[in-house]
Formats: sequence, C-alpha cells, structure tokens
Amino acid sequence: MQTLNLDLADRGYPIYIGINLLDQPELIRKHVCASQVAIVTNETIAPLYLERVAAIFDGYQLSRVILPDGEQFKSLEYLNHIFDQLLAEKHNRTTTLIALGGGVIGDMTGFAAACYQRGVNFIQIPTTLLAQVDSSVGGKTGVNHPLGKNMIGAFYQPQAVLIDIQTLSSLPLRELRAGFAEVIKYGLICDAEFFVWLEENYQKVLQLDPQALTYAIHKSCSIKAEIVEGDEREAGLRATLNLGHTFGHAVETFQGYGNWLHGEAVAVGMVMALDLSRRLGWLTDNEVQRGLDLIEKAGLPIIPPDKLKKETFIELMALDKKVFDGKLRLVLLQEIGRAIVTSNFPMEAFQQTLEAGDQLCR
Amino acid sequence: MQTLNLDLADRGYPIYIGINLLDQPELIRKHVCASQVAIVTNETIAPLYLERVAAIFDGYQLSRVILPDGEQFKSLEYLNHIFDQLLAEKHNRTTTLIALGGGVIGDMTGFAAACYQRGVNFIQIPTTLLAQVDSSVGGKTGVNHPLGKNMIGAFYQPQAVLIDIQTLSSLPLRELRAGFAEVIKYGLICDAEFFVWLEENYQKVLQLDPQALTYAIHKSCSIKAEIVEGDEREAGLRATLNLGHTFGHAVETFQGYGNWLHGEAVAVGMVMALDLSRRLGWLTDNEVQRGLDLIEKAGLPIIPPDKLKKETFIELMALDKKVFDGKLRLVLLQEIGRAIVTSNFPMEAFQQTLEAGDQLCR
Repeated sequence: MQTLNLDLADRGYPIYIGINLLDQPELIRKHVCASQVAIVTNETIAPLYLERVAAIFDGYQLSRVILPDGEQFKSLEYLNHIFDQLLAEKHNRTTTLIALGGGVIGDMTGFAAACYQRGVNFIQIPTTLLAQVDSSVGGKTGVNHPLGKNMIGAFYQPQAVLIDIQTLSSLPLRELRAGFAEVIKYGLICDAEFFVWLEENYQKVLQLDPQALTYAIHKSCSIKAEIVEGDEREAGLRATLNLGHTFGHAVETFQGYGNWLHGEAVAVGMVMALDLSRRLGWLTDNEVQRGLDLIEKAGLPIIPPDKLKKETFIELMALDKKVFDGKLRLVLLQEIGRAIVTSNFPMEAFQQTLEAGDQLCR
Repeated sequence: MQTLNLDLADRGYPIYIGINLLDQPELIRKHVCASQVAIVTNETIAPLYLERVAAIFDGYQLSRVILPDGEQFKSLEYLNHIFDQLLAEKHNRTTTLIALGGGVIGDMTGFAAACYQRGVNFIQIPTTLLAQVDSSVGGKTGVNHPLGKNMIGAFYQPQAVLIDIQTLSSLPLRELRAGFAEVIKYGLICDAEFFVWLEENYQKVLQLDPQALTYAIHKSCSIKAEIVEGDEREAGLRATLNLGHTFGHAVETFQGYGNWLHGEAVAVGMVMALDLSRRLGWLTDNEVQRGLDLIEKAGLPIIPPDKLKKETFIELMALDKKVFDGKLRLVLLQEIGRAIVTSNFPMEAFQQTLEAGDQLCR
C-alpha cells in the first residue's frame, strides 16, 4: 500500500492506494470519530461492495443509502434523499458519511457531508478510475443543475481517501477509458515525462496490470494533490486541471447528462484545446498529433457531437464556472506538460476550433 | 453609525449599525467586487425596500430574486429557485448576493451564496430585529427539512452586515417582540448588567426609540460577535447561544413551520430552561421570576402548546443538532448572565419541565 498526504492550509488527509484495502478494517475505522456511519452508494455498486464495507462497521449504527446509478441523478432532489434517510435514522453531527462509488457518488456524498447539520465528516472510497485519479481528491463536491454541471456545491475535504484498485476489476471498459482521459490530462498539463510513460504503457493500464495501474493512479493523485495544495479554492493554478473541461461541459450539457461519460466529454474537450493551442502557434503539429493519438488509442472520442454547432457551444460555455465577469477563460497548452489559463486568444481561432468538427487537429 | 468588526480566524467583516444606512450607497458598494449583483428578498419586503437597494446598483448587472414570505419556504425547493434565476441570468463566480429581509431570507441567501458555484460573496441587510441581533451575524446559513429545522446548511460568512434600524418601522409588533426574545437571551446567557438594562428599558426598545434600539442591537451583536470569534464552528461556547432553542425547535417542528415565530418558540424554550435550571437548584426563585417577567412583559409566550406532550417533545428534541452521540445537551443557566451547556442533569427533573405546561416557573 502507498500513502500520499494532501496537506492543506488548515488540515491534511491521507490518500491510501493499494490492492484489497477494503479488507483492512482499521484503515477506515480509524477515521471514524463516533458510532454512527452512513454508507452512500448506488444500485450498481451496492451488490458488489456494500456488504464488504458494511462488515467493517459491525457494532456501529450503520445506514445504507442506495441511490440510482447515473449522472442524471446528481441533483438536489436526490441529494435530499440522502438527507431524508440521515434524518429519519437520526444521524447527528458526529456521524461519518462514506462515499462508495464513482464520481457522482463521491461528489454527492461529499456535498451532503458539507451541508448535513452544517458539516459532518466523510470518507471517500472511489470505485471508478475517474473518481480514483480525479474527483475523490481535492475536495470539490456538488450536484448538477439543469442549466449547468456542478453549479451547486462546496469545497469540502474528506477525512481520508481509500483507493482499492481491486474495485476496478468490476468497472466496464468504457468507464475505465473515460477515467483514463483524466490520467492523460495530468501528463498534458504538467508532466511531459509522465505523458511519455503513458504513451508507452497505456495498454497495461487499461488491461489493469496492477503495477502499471498503481503507478498511474499514484502519479495522477500526486500531481493533483500538489496542485490542490497550492490552490485549494481554484484562484489560479488549480484551474489548469480543467483542461478540456470547459469545452467538455458544453458537450455534456448539450447531450443531456448521462449520455456521454464525463471523461469522454473531457477527451473531446482536450482535443479541442490541443487544436486551439496549435492555431495559436503554441503547440507543434507533432505535439498535437501525439496528444490526439494517445486519446484515440485509449478508445476515447475525438470529435464533438455532429449537431453541436458553434453558437450552441458558445452559449453553453458562457455558463461554465470558468467564465469570469463575462470573459471566457480556457486552459490551453504551451507545450506538452505545460498548461496556462487564459482569456487572451483571438475569437477567430476559437471559432475555427468550434467549427472544426472531424477536422480537429488535422 | 456604529461599526463592529467580527474577527474570525481567516477573515473578518464589518457590521454597520445606524439609521438610513440604505441611503449610503458606498457603504454597500465597496463590498461588491465585480459587476454582477443579485438581491434576494421576499414578497413582503420587496415593495418596501427592494427598489431603494436596487438604486444603489445603477450600472451593475442586477437580478431581483423574490421569494414568498415565510418559514415554510425555507426549503431546498425554494433555495433552488434562487439557483434557477442566478443561472438563467448567467451569474458567475464573481457575483455578489444580497440578502434583504429577515432571518429566513438571510439564512437562505447565505446558504445559496455558500453553494452557488461552490461559493460566491454575499452581504446581509437584515430587516427584522431577529435577523439584526442574531441570524445575520455569525455565518450560520441553511434551510429546513421536514424532519428538522436548519438541518441542511453551511457555516459561511458574509462580506458585511448592514443594519438599518429604520427598516424596523415597517415590522409588525409581533415580529419585533419575537426578535426581542433573542435580545433577552443575550442578557440571560452572559451579561447580567445588560439584563438589568433590558428590565428597565424594554418598553423603549419595543417602541423603537432610536437610542435604546441602537444600544440594544449593538450590545446584542457585540455579545454574539465575541462568542462567535471564540468558537466559529460551535465546538463549545457558541452553543450557549442556543439557550431555549432545543426546546424551541421542538415547538416549532410540532406546530409546523410558520405558525409560531422562531423567537416565540425560543421564548417558551427559555422559560423551560429557566424552569429546569431552578429544578436543578442553580437558579433562585427570584432569578427565575425576573426572567419569566421580562419575557412575559415583552409580550412573548411563556407556555408551550397544550397538545405537545412529553413523549413528542423528547422525540423532536432527539433530532436537534445539539444532540451528540445520543446524549441530549441543553443550555441551562447557573445564574442570570452565566450559561452552561450540559447533558448532566437528572432525567426526572427534565421530564418534570416537559410536563409542567402552564405551571412552568411557578
């Protein structure tokens, strides 16, 4: 098992990474401060891992909150289902929520913990690659609104993150690939060496080779932890983690939540960011091609939905949180391994990228 | 105008108290960091003060969010109405929400600010005595749940609190009295001298004598600020501010939100706390009588609802946030001006208080 520590201004917490960590009860129990625990999970994960985690809390007052599976349920309405059950089962301020599932469960459980009785403890047990390398680390929590993704939420840090890579064995390949999009992102934004490693080892990771997988997850979490430590509230550097996300959010919103996976939308968004970065003369043709190749070889989409036209793109992007005071800010690349956040680009190049369709990066 | 500063660990903010502060645009504008502003108010307050506040923001992108008036609308559903409008009108992370109204508007707007895009700025302009002396100061925000008051919320501090006592001239007497319950509370929990002043001056305050009113509000805010500064997250001392609230919440829940005013329920709750404190031998008959007299003379209720029986009381109190790990903690008085938080009292005395009805403190 490897342990990474995330050190924030007022508090830090450990990220444990290893195989079969769910069989080490003390690892989780030591982060629970009282006798009440509520495991929040979904209908897909519950039959796989819920009772295994529940067994850790023999003798505790334990609640099982089971939500339907899918991004379309990441809403205030279903958040309220968590509150309903916590209140009906009389959970008090000393309770600990445990998020057992992917990014949706992690974001919702974290936000529920942030708001329940003005804040209770929580622990992340991410079971998808996306959640393991991205959403479970860093304290962004929240739900969607019909008018935009993650528009309602909080910065709220867990007591611990427990990444058991064994849980990935039950993950559908499509979701594994979607999670891998975020792994590629870390290479692109700040670690050219890691990007090269990914070019050479992406197959091993996608085949769940334990060693390669652990390395990729550990590296991804390290990069994210370092960025979050420097900028918890996303005043600056943290925004580079949104490479591909502003374009991607527009794609997700256009398609309706749940039709494209988040990582798939981010993949296309990254292709658009690569494309625009080349138009600005920042990336060479070769760099853009390498980015495109890795995304494509990982089995991720590289073309935005055919029906999503420029005007709709702009309208949907204007609602994104990365828009400050009317100015659209994008994460772009100056080379592989170096990202910047900027609103300083010619609208013409930007519009060309939005219109490029299947000619992106070509 | 008087200015109080609330100094918290990571940030402080000013509380302005005076007459006709709404006519001093710069006082508010200097706390708005960008060009977007959303005033959140209700149908009662809007015709009275909304346009006066709106006039301050000539040239800004201004939204007016008008909610129905009443505690029964302090819910996730109506919170979402705020988000709906902010998103529809494309407010971004640099927007500032302005809470213009009583405690319900302040709590909801503050919570909306805490959650909208994971946190935007907000300013409190409380227009009821209750909000001016209590809920607008200290950063407690939230909404109710059918199973309990303020069960969903956040600790989230405003940029500034602006108390214009002129706004109290439009407040119904019943609400003025309800707010006065919290003023009495400050005397009871930590300032015997202020309590004596209130015994002598309560009529002036309730008649809106500007000097007496300003003194009472300033004193109340000072006490609250000092307590919050020492214990923002209610780990200890801050809990004394809940004198009468655990009993009171049970009354409010039993009656259904909106039938009893919060301050009225707190008044009865304080009578019950006085009663129990006497049963424990901590308060003299004379002290209890003085407390009861002031509450009664202020026109506040001193007897819980007839139909609220002991068993229901206990059930409703067990859901209160002040219950830790199964133990009911209450704020009780050791003398006028000195409160403690304790779960160390005989159940028999507690049950006698719950059963006393119109014999409370007699």
